[in-house]
Amino acid sequence: MSEAHPLQAPRGLKGVVVADTELGDVRGLEGFYHYRQYSAPELAATRTFEDVWYLLFEGRLPSLAERDAFTREVVALRELPPSLVELLPAIARSTNVPLAGLRTALSQLAALEDMPPTYDADDATIHANAMRMAAAVPVLIAALHRYSIGKTPIAPRPDLATAANYLYMIEGDEPDSDRARAIEQYLILGIDHGFNASTFTARVVTSTGADVGSAVVAALGSLSGPLHGGAPSRALDTLDAIGTPENTDFWVRQAIANGDRIMGFGHPVYRTADPRSVMLHEIAESLGGPLVDFAGQVEGTVEKVLAELKPGRELHTNVEYYAGVVMELCGLPRSLFTPTFAASRVVGWCAQIIEQSHDTAIIRPSARYVGPPAPQPVPLPS
Amino acid sequence: MSEAHPLQAPRGLKGVVVADTELGDVRGLEGFYHYRQYSAPELAATRTFEDVWYLLFEGRLPSLAERDAFTREVVALRELPPSLVELLPAIARSTNVPLAGLRTALSQLAALEDMPPTYDADDATIHANAMRMAAAVPVLIAALHRYSIGKTPIAPRPDLATAANYLYMIEGDEPDSDRARAIEQYLILGIDHGFNASTFTARVVTSTGADVGSAVVAALGSLSGPLHGGAPSRALDTLDAIGTPENTDFWVRQAIANGDRIMGFGHPVYRTADPRSVMLHEIAESLGGPLVDFAGQVEGTVEKVLAELKPGRELHTNVEYYAGVVMELCGLPRSLFTPTFAASRVVGWCAQIIEQSHDTAIIRPSARYVGPPAPQPVPLPS
Repeated sequence: MSEAHPLQAPRGLKGVVVADTELGDVRGLEGFYHYRQYSAPELAATRTFEDVWYLLFEGRLPSLAERDAFTREVVALRELPPSLVELLPAIARSTNVPLAGLRTALSQLAALEDMPPTYDADDATIHANAMRMAAAVPVLIAALHRYSIGKTPIAPRPDLATAANYLYMIEGDEPDSDRARAIEQYLILGIDHGFNASTFTARVVTSTGADVGSAVVAALGSLSGPLHGGAPSRALDTLDAIGTPENTDFWVRQAIANGDRIMGFGHPVYRTADPRSVMLHEIAESLGGPLVDFAGQVEGTVEKVLAELKPGRELHTNVEYYAGVVMELCGLPRSLFTPTFAASRVVGWCAQIIEQSHDTAIIRPSARYVGPPAPQPVPLPS
Repeated sequence: MSEAHPLQAPRGLKGVVVADTELGDVRGLEGFYHYRQYSAPELAATRTFEDVWYLLFEGRLPSLAERDAFTREVVALRELPPSLVELLPAIARSTNVPLAGLRTALSQLAALEDMPPTYDADDATIHANAMRMAAAVPVLIAALHRYSIGKTPIAPRPDLATAANYLYMIEGDEPDSDRARAIEQYLILGIDHGFNASTFTARVVTSTGADVGSAVVAALGSLSGPLHGGAPSRALDTLDAIGTPENTDFWVRQAIANGDRIMGFGHPVYRTADPRSVMLHEIAESLGGPLVDFAGQVEGTVEKVLAELKPGRELHTNVEYYAGVVMELCGLPRSLFTPTFAASRVVGWCAQIIEQSHDTAIIRPSARYVGPPAPQPVPLPS
């Protein structure tokens, strides 16, 4: 690109600051991340999902009265337009990839809601559209899942909070409080995490003045790849492939010799343990059972072998490793692991979309042409 | 973000090179752009849409035999899965924004085609998925449009090339060759243009290893904003609002006094005339009529008044100004202007997705936290 001063960015824009945000930060060297000014793990330890959702959208934690009003709003938004409900069986039949069905359903919901371009919309409309998308995701996941296993959807229960209601809509039974709280904590931990690929996608799309629905659908699409969001089930598949603790050493050496990526390990930002992984490990241990023990043994062996074969390359479990374990222990089918991550992250996407909608600069980088020499410009007839 | 050396990028990543590409380049200072090593306007002047599509996908222009085989492939891919066809009336009913319906239909098509993550897929599968998406877009636009005006879709005609068949499916009559060629040239001119917001979106989504369908649906979403792709109808609306040539001076002064953006003028990269605009102006003039004359008069007045009020700020018509005029002269309803742009650009998105699928680095920039001070990390129990 023959601009006057092209700037060559590091590969994948790693470490390049593309925007200001008040939503939070990831301190990769400290192993710490926060939502607004609050430690995210501390919020997960002490608050409800709705509280943190409110924090991201409104800029502060709710009072008790605000929490109640907000929860009522979320409960009301679980109701889907009838014409979307009619389409869900056909959408569910179209695919065995729940994320693909969710993508279509969200696109259709945004169309039915007639979401205007953020460029034209006032703040209240953008906010309402964002609430609509975030509240609909768990309902759509559960309904599409029920159809995909040949069952009918279960109506949401207004007395249950997001996490418990999500498990209820999937299983039809009210979950015990340990599992509901474990999923709620996972949902809180996943809401936002810097300018990851899906969040960045949402912001790029919004920067054109696009509608909230288009930005959410776009962000969701980036979870279809295993390098972001698509790995929690693959991390568990890795545990299955290893099979037994004593097989770990051999398996890991072979994977490294083959140059395979080991799903569930490594993160582009953290150079320490991933604080989400640390907390999810604790949550998994509080739920207990042989899977947690095995996961811990594999984690230890992978880190030991990696330290030996790739010295100096700190590779710890990332969020997806113990997220997979927690979701498995809570009875979620593996096909719903990535969609469940979407049910959490959509709140972050929407908060980021709201923030981006106040910026007027389109995000439009450049590329460097490396093909065969191109001609000099041909003078065009004037 | 407390990385060791955060790099503050220019606003909107302007001028920042984020990837290498062999697909083409935009030389903003020279008013020139090319696809691979060929001048894009020259390709539009001398080649068919299918030729240029082939060039972008295959890396070289086709022989006559290759052109025939490629055209047959494109014709075969116009056939949609019956279960998608069944859903089109409901999708069309859901919205009066054709782009929103197209987004849902493309998402459903990708689901039905069971497109695997590019991370897992071989090159042939990625290529086939890309061909499927690009070939389906004009068919879906036409079918959804027909339903939205209370008519039934018109089956594609295998003897017509993409542009002529597109007009045929919309109107039901075979277009005259001047109009078919004008739209074909517009389609060629729009295929690719650097790392604009939609193309960049497609590459960010693909960088996670996402499926081709998710990347295309995401890119499409970024056209819903008027700052990229959403402006050709707005540029014509501007001409309507101005009404008469003698009103232009007053109108433009008022718009500038109000700080309004004048749709159809200005481009983030070109500092000269936009070569697409120059060629589309010529095409519009060859079609002729009072609209072209008026558009030329308004263009001249806007440039004159801008030069007076904002000296030094070179602001020329961009692609959307005369694109709107050409599409209007070819009888396309304004609601289809942005979708028609998508029918062109989807070929570029797909070529970019194919190229990005060979890169293994996820695109993941950073943000700078500017909210209230956040706490020191709370040591987590180990």
